[in-house]
Amino acid sequence: MHAVASASRLKGQTIVLVPTMGFLHEGHLSLVRQGRKLGNQLIVSIFVNPTQFGPNEDFEDYPRDFNRDVQMVAQENADIVFAPEAADIYPANFQTFVNTTNLSNKLCGLSRPSHFKGVTTVVAKLFNIVQPHIAIFGKKDFQQLIIIRQMVCDLNFDIKIIGAATFRESDGLAMSSRNTYLSQRQRSSAPALYQALLNAQKMVNANIKKTSTLIQKTTQFIEARPETQIDYIAICDPRTLEDLKLVKQPALMALAVKIGRTRLIDNMILTP
Amino acid sequence: MHAVASASRLKGQTIVLVPTMGFLHEGHLSLVRQGRKLGNQLIVSIFVNPTQFGPNEDFEDYPRDFNRDVQMVAQENADIVFAPEAADIYPANFQTFVNTTNLSNKLCGLSRPSHFKGVTTVVAKLFNIVQPHIAIFGKKDFQQLIIIRQMVCDLNFDIKIIGAATFRESDGLAMSSRNTYLSQRQRSSAPALYQALLNAQKMVNANIKKTSTLIQKTTQFIEARPETQIDYIAICDPRTLEDLKLVKQPALMALAVKIGRTRLIDNMILTP
Repeated sequence: MHAVASASRLKGQTIVLVPTMGFLHEGHLSLVRQGRKLGNQLIVSIFVNPTQFGPNEDFEDYPRDFNRDVQMVAQENADIVFAPEAADIYPANFQTFVNTTNLSNKLCGLSRPSHFKGVTTVVAKLFNIVQPHIAIFGKKDFQQLIIIRQMVCDLNFDIKIIGAATFRESDGLAMSSRNTYLSQRQRSSAPALYQALLNAQKMVNANIKKTSTLIQKTTQFIEARPETQIDYIAICDPRTLEDLKLVKQPALMALAVKIGRTRLIDNMILTP
Repeated sequence: MHAVASASRLKGQTIVLVPTMGFLHEGHLSLVRQGRKLGNQLIVSIFVNPTQFGPNEDFEDYPRDFNRDVQMVAQENADIVFAPEAADIYPANFQTFVNTTNLSNKLCGLSRPSHFKGVTTVVAKLFNIVQPHIAIFGKKDFQQLIIIRQMVCDLNFDIKIIGAATFRESDGLAMSSRNTYLSQRQRSSAPALYQALLNAQKMVNANIKKTSTLIQKTTQFIEARPETQIDYIAICDPRTLEDLKLVKQPALMALAVKIGRTRLIDNMILTP
């Protein structure tokens, strides 16, 4: 991959990377399509990264279908699928980690303490392997997106990071490979996350600006659905992820909810 | 620097980086001369990196003479001196660190607990800024050299790391910008470090293989000199830095000694 990337750069090509954990859905494909327009060497990586899963999380169970993924990527005319083995990415004696400290300790970082360290480490590695000019990440993982941006800035990667809009099912549920875990009953609860975000924007429109009120109403709304258990609901500064008391300027509303044993996330910028 | 590096790479040039903290001496210049032969875009960086100094160390006092450094580098026909400001390398809100864990917790890492984290972080940044094909580090900082090699391997930097031989004064003292701290009396104690290493090799030649004996004799030898205080003397595996009991194959002998308030280091590969 180093040799391919160097040759590509010497030819003056623009390398675009879309990093994924595979089991692709329309959300991923929307990133791939965006990438296709932005460069002439489009690389989709597929790697279920063990270091971003906690000890009691779903690394083993995470859905995988490599052959289907490759077909889907080929249909979008990507140039390369980069799908390394875990033993190549983390050989014996591996011991170097990249950690973006402040932003990683908030929101999802509270219930997943080493998650973002795993993300920044593998993304730094992918950046060095693939040597992209541009990399595309979904806004569904908003915290991940701004942590990557911070890492790119802090470590001086010469890479443009693009945040791509969240892709949703017709009932509003944000697309996620983890949606396949849901039973039918759980699946009917899942759109509550997006509905809750829309409701919060409506409340803001109706001049309810206190985040404590917004969060309380949202909690009640979600908890009324079967099998839901809230991990967090936060309204915060979209750059620092610091909690806000009032929605006076565009604010990130982010939430994580367990539906049965499946943890789903979603977010929206609330605009006053 | 990103723009210069990209343009240089597009032209097919080979970029060589010699990272320094300035106050250059013949040791640095030997690295620069080696670099001059290896590429056609030779970049010498000068940056006294605050994050690799502990709170009670000599960051403020570290010797600096930028104009003299630039002249010396120019005489060696380097192409670029890259000398950023600390505020550019560590802007407000900087929060991303690179840490090579196991190797950083040994030898110098024991008395300088965050030193190597600062080193790997700034070197990763310099690599991303300068985008070298080759980077040269001195073997005097042997632990630093192998930590950088480990980081390059772990984070998949496409960079060749070259270790350059230690440059010594005529009496054997390893060249270091910190040698300027020494009083005349302290300076006369300083060659004991190298003499101790040579003595150890002689003992090994005389079939003394037990590292406990070698370390004990070396301790006595150094402590007999005025104003010396040993930080550590270790004989270890040059790849893992794990302590050895016997010198059965090439072994790293590394030592750190305070002479007055100045901490000096040196090392040698002992060969049985």
